[in-house]
Amino acid sequence: MGNQMVYFFGSGKAEGDKTMKDLLGGKGANLAEMTNIGIPVPAGFTITTEVCDLYYKNNKKYPDGLEKAVNDNIAKLESAMGMKFGDKNNPLLVSVRSGAASSMPGMMDTILNLGINEDVVEGFSAKTGNARFVWDAYRRFMQMFGDVAMDVPHDKFEHILEAAKEKVAKKKGIGPKDVKDTDLDVEDLKEVVAAYKKMYKEVKGKDFPSDAREQLWGAIEAVFRSWNNDRAIKYRQINDIRGLLGTAVNIQAMVFGNMGDSSATGVCFSRNPATGENKFYGEYLINAQGEDVVAGIRTPQEITLDGSKEWAANNSVSEDDRKKKFPSLEETMPVVFKELVGIKDRLEKHYKDMQDMEFTIQEGKLYFLQTRNGKRTAQASLRIAVEMVNEGVIDKETALLRIEPNALDQLLHPTFQKGAKKQVIAKGLNASPGAAVGKVVFSADEAEAMAKNGEKVVLVRIETSPEDIGGMNVAQGILTARGGATSHAAVVARQMGKPCVAGCSTIHIDYKAQTITAGNVTLKKGDFISLDGSTGEVMAGSSPTEEPKLTGNFSTLMGWADEATTMKVRANADTPTDAKRAREYGAVGIGLCRTEHMFFEGNRIDSVRKMILAEDEAGRRAALKELEPMQQGDFEQLFTAMDGYPVIIRLLDPPLHEFLPHTEKEQKELAAQMKVPFEKVHQKVESLHEFNPMLGFRGCRLGIIFSEITEMQVSAIVNAAIAVKKKGINVIPEIMFPLVGNVKELQFLIDKSKPIVDQKLKDAGVNLHIMLGTMIEVPRAAVTSDEIAKIAEFFSFGTNDLTQMTCGFSRDDSGSFLPAYVEKGFYDYDPFQVLDQGGVGKLMNFAIKNAREVRKDLEIGICGEHGGEPKTVEFCYSLGMNYVSCSPFRVPLARLASAQAAIKTKNKK
Amino acid sequence: MGNQMVYFFGSGKAEGDKTMKDLLGGKGANLAEMTNIGIPVPAGFTITTEVCDLYYKNNKKYPDGLEKAVNDNIAKLESAMGMKFGDKNNPLLVSVRSGAASSMPGMMDTILNLGINEDVVEGFSAKTGNARFVWDAYRRFMQMFGDVAMDVPHDKFEHILEAAKEKVAKKKGIGPKDVKDTDLDVEDLKEVVAAYKKMYKEVKGKDFPSDAREQLWGAIEAVFRSWNNDRAIKYRQINDIRGLLGTAVNIQAMVFGNMGDSSATGVCFSRNPATGENKFYGEYLINAQGEDVVAGIRTPQEITLDGSKEWAANNSVSEDDRKKKFPSLEETMPVVFKELVGIKDRLEKHYKDMQDMEFTIQEGKLYFLQTRNGKRTAQASLRIAVEMVNEGVIDKETALLRIEPNALDQLLHPTFQKGAKKQVIAKGLNASPGAAVGKVVFSADEAEAMAKNGEKVVLVRIETSPEDIGGMNVAQGILTARGGATSHAAVVARQMGKPCVAGCSTIHIDYKAQTITAGNVTLKKGDFISLDGSTGEVMAGSSPTEEPKLTGNFSTLMGWADEATTMKVRANADTPTDAKRAREYGAVGIGLCRTEHMFFEGNRIDSVRKMILAEDEAGRRAALKELEPMQQGDFEQLFTAMDGYPVIIRLLDPPLHEFLPHTEKEQKELAAQMKVPFEKVHQKVESLHEFNPMLGFRGCRLGIIFSEITEMQVSAIVNAAIAVKKKGINVIPEIMFPLVGNVKELQFLIDKSKPIVDQKLKDAGVNLHIMLGTMIEVPRAAVTSDEIAKIAEFFSFGTNDLTQMTCGFSRDDSGSFLPAYVEKGFYDYDPFQVLDQGGVGKLMNFAIKNAREVRKDLEIGICGEHGGEPKTVEFCYSLGMNYVSCSPFRVPLARLASAQAAIKTKNKK
Repeated sequence: MGNQMVYFFGSGKAEGDKTMKDLLGGKGANLAEMTNIGIPVPAGFTITTEVCDLYYKNNKKYPDGLEKAVNDNIAKLESAMGMKFGDKNNPLLVSVRSGAASSMPGMMDTILNLGINEDVVEGFSAKTGNARFVWDAYRRFMQMFGDVAMDVPHDKFEHILEAAKEKVAKKKGIGPKDVKDTDLDVEDLKEVVAAYKKMYKEVKGKDFPSDAREQLWGAIEAVFRSWNNDRAIKYRQINDIRGLLGTAVNIQAMVFGNMGDSSATGVCFSRNPATGENKFYGEYLINAQGEDVVAGIRTPQEITLDGSKEWAANNSVSEDDRKKKFPSLEETMPVVFKELVGIKDRLEKHYKDMQDMEFTIQEGKLYFLQTRNGKRTAQASLRIAVEMVNEGVIDKETALLRIEPNALDQLLHPTFQKGAKKQVIAKGLNASPGAAVGKVVFSADEAEAMAKNGEKVVLVRIETSPEDIGGMNVAQGILTARGGATSHAAVVARQMGKPCVAGCSTIHIDYKAQTITAGNVTLKKGDFISLDGSTGEVMAGSSPTEEPKLTGNFSTLMGWADEATTMKVRANADTPTDAKRAREYGAVGIGLCRTEHMFFEGNRIDSVRKMILAEDEAGRRAALKELEPMQQGDFEQLFTAMDGYPVIIRLLDPPLHEFLPHTEKEQKELAAQMKVPFEKVHQKVESLHEFNPMLGFRGCRLGIIFSEITEMQVSAIVNAAIAVKKKGINVIPEIMFPLVGNVKELQFLIDKSKPIVDQKLKDAGVNLHIMLGTMIEVPRAAVTSDEIAKIAEFFSFGTNDLTQMTCGFSRDDSGSFLPAYVEKGFYDYDPFQVLDQGGVGKLMNFAIKNAREVRKDLEIGICGEHGGEPKTVEFCYSLGMNYVSCSPFRVPLARLASAQAAIKTKNKK
Repeated sequence: MGNQMVYFFGSGKAEGDKTMKDLLGGKGANLAEMTNIGIPVPAGFTITTEVCDLYYKNNKKYPDGLEKAVNDNIAKLESAMGMKFGDKNNPLLVSVRSGAASSMPGMMDTILNLGINEDVVEGFSAKTGNARFVWDAYRRFMQMFGDVAMDVPHDKFEHILEAAKEKVAKKKGIGPKDVKDTDLDVEDLKEVVAAYKKMYKEVKGKDFPSDAREQLWGAIEAVFRSWNNDRAIKYRQINDIRGLLGTAVNIQAMVFGNMGDSSATGVCFSRNPATGENKFYGEYLINAQGEDVVAGIRTPQEITLDGSKEWAANNSVSEDDRKKKFPSLEETMPVVFKELVGIKDRLEKHYKDMQDMEFTIQEGKLYFLQTRNGKRTAQASLRIAVEMVNEGVIDKETALLRIEPNALDQLLHPTFQKGAKKQVIAKGLNASPGAAVGKVVFSADEAEAMAKNGEKVVLVRIETSPEDIGGMNVAQGILTARGGATSHAAVVARQMGKPCVAGCSTIHIDYKAQTITAGNVTLKKGDFISLDGSTGEVMAGSSPTEEPKLTGNFSTLMGWADEATTMKVRANADTPTDAKRAREYGAVGIGLCRTEHMFFEGNRIDSVRKMILAEDEAGRRAALKELEPMQQGDFEQLFTAMDGYPVIIRLLDPPLHEFLPHTEKEQKELAAQMKVPFEKVHQKVESLHEFNPMLGFRGCRLGIIFSEITEMQVSAIVNAAIAVKKKGINVIPEIMFPLVGNVKELQFLIDKSKPIVDQKLKDAGVNLHIMLGTMIEVPRAAVTSDEIAKIAEFFSFGTNDLTQMTCGFSRDDSGSFLPAYVEKGFYDYDPFQVLDQGGVGKLMNFAIKNAREVRKDLEIGICGEHGGEPKTVEFCYSLGMNYVSCSPFRVPLARLASAQAAIKTKNKK
């Protein structure tokens, strides 16, 4: 192998740079980059990921030449630092860290202080004049190296340390738990080191390595091995990290922040990661190591004076106390502070993003150990991106790419206050985001009754059905014991923008007793309950919530998003309220209006049931006649709300049995109300029962066999369009037939509908084109899309059902195996949440290509639940869709994902 | 238009011939052909189908030049016949008949005697000396022409005729119903004609056309119009007749078999259409018209002396009486008879097929009016084809193409005796052919008990489930009230070769009362019932049956079939008995052995239930250990029965709930037997309940989540293979994983199975390749077939499930709309019976092409129910499949269909 295996950085020059992440890992590339741009970084070198790859390919042997390269770089490092590796008087100590191209917490922990041994300890103590610090460093190294690199069980070290603490406790007359690490003095630490050595020899059968190079190669091998340990493999699987060669190994000279009061260590952010405010922010500790800042033994101090004062005010610390006990770095080391500010400015400008940095000050000298793009809240993410564009640091496209679409969800829904107490009693599926608090109620009717009295309720059901719509609409949130992410409750809740925790199987709901039990907690009807739809947590009692605050940055960014893409975003909305909300969130049309929900409202259900129970077509037509004006009214409102935008109305879809009651009691009531024998109602329900309703008598099959339903709905749509058009509304209706599998079904429906449309428009003297199109949700429709495109004016992919049929998964039943399938990696994600691009998506691609060959300008969209999922939105863009449609609350997210897809595609070219 | 519009035939020469069916229609082409080869045919001419096409394209106007062409041909016809059209003294009368390229009963009836009018009647009466005959011909013409060509309602003519008969009745003093047409004398007929004319003028507002040419053009137009009448359109839709130009019109000189005792008319077949025997067969009547032979007013006489004597013997007619009253044509007109025999020999030799002929003898002169390939029984079809090959008339490929594969079914199953009395009480779906007679029994257990006592039973169930296998196996036949052609009962019955009538929804089964009611007939348990699985008829009582007789011709033809094709036929068989039968019928392997049926036998179900109820994997493994030796034994028997042939074994497929009892009583029994609380059993059943079991936890999903099941089954298969191999059996096992939708599922299963296979073979020192492959039955598998083919060694299309998921039809529920879909022509056939080539088939084509690109030699077959359906078999051949697999009884049919597909493909090239 001719490739360079090791890359040096130090003395203001590095062999690598930030573009070499794949070869040097993220950490290595950034250390090299910082060195190159003159940031003070302790010198070191990086063994490449290619070496790791060769190590595995070569049956866990190092490639020829590696040893020489490492030795050469050690020599360079010694020369750069003016110290010698393994030298007892002027020892060079190093840290060894793993670092792949993607950040991977699953891999090896850091080993610090490598190169130390009993001889070095002596010389180093002499040099630093701080024997306790040096012996502690030795103890820490032995523990880290023994555990991490040599597989000596962690607790064997802990036992020895605890025994030493017990001894100190006896000496001091305090409890052993009150003894801190820092209470061990030099002698104590020497005893611990001796005990470590003894134990190590017992466990490993040989002495603890004292040779610095032996230690180094042990650490390097440990890093390589950690690449394929179970945790790392699992982490890569879960996070879908693929195509990496391996991990790099970073070997870097140690610097110490714990060498006295002119030493310190800290972490800082170039802007506030919580709010996004452009203000330097960070914490530090004098005479401390990095882990001390994290461990919480001492209270970290603010870096800036402003920050320090604010902290003091929040914690009721007087200015005097603050200055004495918790002064800022700006005050304690004003020179170093200035240097720090200068560097963080340079780094942010250089990386063009908010930086998360680690630094150490060793005896007044500042070193940077790490810089990376900082993690941030959704709110901060938005603010930083927009402000950086305004500052001219980045362009709009970069800003758009910076924001994780899913993060927008946080911005649109109320959340529980951070840090507030909560009693989590169960965890279900996070089916619809947001925080809900209300009184437990077990039926939709009760929910409506209590809501009428001004009470806030949470609807708790084993599962929901379309009958529950009214109750869901007034509830603060919905909790179900059964059903997945695309169950009725979840789908409707998302559309309503209501928090929902679904499929919470650990709770037991007793309708009779009107209680809900989780573990040993039982809540009665009327007790308060809190749901976190973003996490799936169910809490007893009333947890305090916060309303979302949308800033001007939000609409600025959304505006940029719309400019960046050609794929539009519509919303799935059935009511004028939903439609209005969808417009507010920037939807430019309705992609799916489900008409069946209108059939449940008020006493309409009576007419629907009359229709279902009718003996013949005449009876059905009479019942439909009652429904038609109500449907027309609904459509008029919807069209008015969407003035100027297209509205796709899907004709009746669910199987008829969903409209009939299923308990004997309800059936008897219905029979009495309809004045028919109970037997008749019961028989009708029985006859409508299906073994696999998913594949049964529904969708356009209903509208074909009972074509009078189609006629009524088409008639209501056209009449509504004419009525609002006459009022000056710009109405753009599209009529959509569901569940078409065969072009002849669609032809039949068009033959039924077109004459009604044409005649009514002609009679009214209104000039309007009403498109007739179809859902593509049956695999056969996708397979024969070229035939269907000949007569369909638009396609809308119903990816929920298309996934069910293409994969053969019933979404209601797949809980028995689908989670295991995702865990085993058969599917990267639950295919009901993230579109299965390799299967369902392949079929969609086939369908679109063939359809567009027949009808080049075919309007194509998606209205399944996937339409609001960022990965799927990006995929839809790649398929050339005209729009995606999703629930109103996900519209912003989809607009951003659409923009990102467009930008990424452009950047690829 | 430069094309010839009219083709003449007559005087031994015709302008057309038999190859011109598309242009002249079937009838016209054959009349021309007969004329050309010197058969005496009344002269005439044919207006082409192109003229019909132009007539419609040209807004129902005749093309220029047609009138002249018709007139020219009339002149030719007059000259050939020596008579004149419309001439009162020597009139030429003609018949007008429609005739498309395909026989189409939906089109126009024949018009006879055209050219007659009041003047002609006089001259013609004088010429024939038979005024009654002539007036009757006039009356008939008016009625036919008025009704068929002029749209005068049929009953208006009938009323007049009935009034005339009433008058005759009064005159004769008999009841009006006893008056026959022939009782009307010349004067009566003259009055009828007069009344017809009066009525015609009232209805149509003008006189009945007396001009011969006016009549002719009216008739021509009527034929053209009949091409697009509702009946004809419907007929073409139903019979899938497409691509025809239109109908031809045949105009032919009339000949009369009713001109006295030297005249006669008859129909005859060149061989016996019932048995296929090579013996001339036919009937005739002296002094009669064609319709008299059909009408049954007089008893038709046999044409041959042999036939006549046989008829007399069967009808107890003495030789004297026979000679006097029913002599054969051989006796009455020996010269004409000889001529007839000569002509039928020539026609059969010429057309190389058994001929169905119509002839008329007018005053001693023989005319042929029609010849066509004769319809025949399945038995005759087979005999004629094989004998014609032996006689050197046709080659083997022609013989193979002559036989309708479905007809073979008739030959393999018992039938009810023809003409035997039967009391049909209901009609269901003809789900599995054959005749069954036995005592009604309502449960599988009872069926087994009664069968043990030697009683023949018919199992009557609302629907069947795998638990009923034992009872089905001992029953003569199966009757269900619910379920379609691919319901459990139907599928299993076909595989067992047992008659089954399924989905007979008009019967009411009362398990409690142990009765079955259809209309007002009620049968109790133990009463006899008869099922005709070929027609779907259900009969009360015991109807006499006939066993099928297979002749040497059958195996001769099957041998030819196997030589003609490369696509093999395997059988779906689960037991050694089925396997043996499959071999007898010529299967060269098992394409599908369903292992779940083995799980029900004897007390194995106990172990299965123990496995399902087990708390953990250890419990499941313990139960599986009990099952393994039994499974191994089954496989050993199957492998032994199929020595030398491949056997595909499918691992466990159905959802687990099918193995548990569903009534509370049974569950309590099971709980007691298993010594577990009833609640546990009940909860297990509840937890296994699914909303859409079709898309649920079954197939390889079970074998993945409970991989110990896979391990047990694979282990049993390999152990069995080793055991029989050691006994000298040539065993070729293939292991098939069901319901794979994702290559990663298959990879998981192969990773589980391959080490077991390899280790066991290695340990046993046996050299054997066991192929591992998969069903393709989930659309996603078809879509990603290229990925799957990389690791699968064979594919078997499970077209039942593939159809369900691709079309989105639950086969158990589709009764609510699928029949209407087929009726409306959305699907040409029920897609569960005949593969939906345009949708499911397109997906299969896509899957096969992509898979073979990855693995050229991939073994591909079909094991769904469609594998035994001739159209599908032909389609599978076109897809390049290696084999089809079907139930044993359909193997011969599939072999023939495979041969036909190969021959047709070859002929196309």
